[in-house]
Amino acid sequence: MARQIFSFVGGATGQWRVSHVQTMIGEALPAVPYVEIVEGNVETGPESAAWMLRGATSYERYVHKAEQQALIAHQPPIGRPEASCAALILMKKSDAWWAMPQDERRTIFEERSHHIQIGMHYLPSVARRLHHCQELGEPFDFLAWLEYAPNDTESFDQLLHELRATEEWHYVEREIDIRLVRS
Amino acid sequence: MARQIFSFVGGATGQWRVSHVQTMIGEALPAVPYVEIVEGNVETGPESAAWMLRGATSYERYVHKAEQQALIAHQPPIGRPEASCAALILMKKSDAWWAMPQDERRTIFEERSHHIQIGMHYLPSVARRLHHCQELGEPFDFLAWLEYAPNDTESFDQLLHELRATEEWHYVEREIDIRLVRS
Repeated sequence: MARQIFSFVGGATGQWRVSHVQTMIGEALPAVPYVEIVEGNVETGPESAAWMLRGATSYERYVHKAEQQALIAHQPPIGRPEASCAALILMKKSDAWWAMPQDERRTIFEERSHHIQIGMHYLPSVARRLHHCQELGEPFDFLAWLEYAPNDTESFDQLLHELRATEEWHYVEREIDIRLVRS
Repeated sequence: MARQIFSFVGGATGQWRVSHVQTMIGEALPAVPYVEIVEGNVETGPESAAWMLRGATSYERYVHKAEQQALIAHQPPIGRPEASCAALILMKKSDAWWAMPQDERRTIFEERSHHIQIGMHYLPSVARRLHHCQELGEPFDFLAWLEYAPNDTESFDQLLHELRATEEWHYVEREIDIRLVRS
């Protein structure tokens, strides 16, 4: 996916209404009623903004060829009309994670935690766009944006439950799960 | 290596005097007599600045465990007093490179182009700090900063000659080689 920057602005207005927030690990964020997603790097948001987070779509860091082909064949696009529910998962991994060489991170990520394989079980219900933030000097490493239909809420919760039980998650030192409904 | 942003400012002043510039592939940059390296993200440089480029140090994208250990054992630090020569290599790779899955990029990078292995032959003469720029919306993907002693110039040229002859370099669509001397 080509590099494209997105700003997530939490505040009094937005296309997405916050329905629930759960701070899974680490420090919380100020509560907001809405999140607005803006293409590009928003330097200063509206006065009502409680927080702004930026991330860039980027190339794949762990996906191998067969996995890439399977994902391309099954993953739905962002913006399906029926996918009126969303999750914005904010995540930061530990220094120990980032200090590992590529092969060790891949082994934990997929061979032992089956991150890609678990995600594949939930396709084509869940659309996903991953934003990288580390090089932007942001407080999180990733902003994961996921969209699903209301009827798929339970299965989406199950997906997160499976991922959070993996070895990979031992390296997550901050995680906030923000659920939203299109407004 | 922890994330740290650096700004390279080309202009009328700086700690490094430009001795030679060679545009290897693609569009050139305006010629400048000096380059100043500043820690942090410089939003606006001095009026005399002809260009400013930013990049962030980051985690390893291709290095495997044995390679990481060998690099840690042999690579010298940045800033050795005797290393009064430097190269700032500005590089952008093609969309075809970035669209490949991780395993294909690794195979071309190391198993077929021996990028890490070639670099290892020139240790401990050459100190290296790689800056990633893609997520910062910069015109280049990487800024590679390399330092060496005057006596090692010929061997450093040989290193670049070897790398530029590899399959990996077929995916380089812009490259500028700026040589500098500490002023």
